[in-house]
Amino acid sequence: MPKIIVEIMPKQDLLDPQGKAVANALQRSGNREISAVRIGKRIELHFDRPITDQDMENASAQASSFLSNDVIEDVVAITKED
Amino acid sequence: MPKIIVEIMPKQDLLDPQGKAVANALQRSGNREISAVRIGKRIELHFDRPITDQDMENASAQASSFLSNDVIEDVVAITKED
Repeated sequence: MPKIIVEIMPKQDLLDPQGKAVANALQRSGNREISAVRIGKRIELHFDRPITDQDMENASAQASSFLSNDVIEDVVAITKED
Repeated sequence: MPKIIVEIMPKQDLLDPQGKAVANALQRSGNREISAVRIGKRIELHFDRPITDQDMENASAQASSFLSNDVIEDVVAITKED
């Protein structure tokens, strides 16, 4: 199924308590080489027809205005999958 | 910074109420060509040194055993970024 994938991460200078908790748990279980963990969102927008350039532009606008909160989050990638 | 990116999505035959709510909101605001939305997680594991094949194997094991719940989620991708 054609889909657009929007990837959103918490801004780098922001604390990410959920990521911190996962990093601590990984380190406790022996993965000491992992220095930090950040947890964001991966949003799939599904289409019933092939994806056009207009769809990509539209998704990009929705990603920054509606799907993410630009005070605390960055849209890191918008990709297409057929 | 070197990082391993783990992408996790809810299983396809599972309801995703958060995604459903976002799909409804997008459709109400005029994006009628979006047929469905699924929301998953994007987890970054940060390293202070270059990433080895051993790290990728390790991350793959942690992704399926600890970072995701394989009753309700699928690990859809594990990628490396330098």
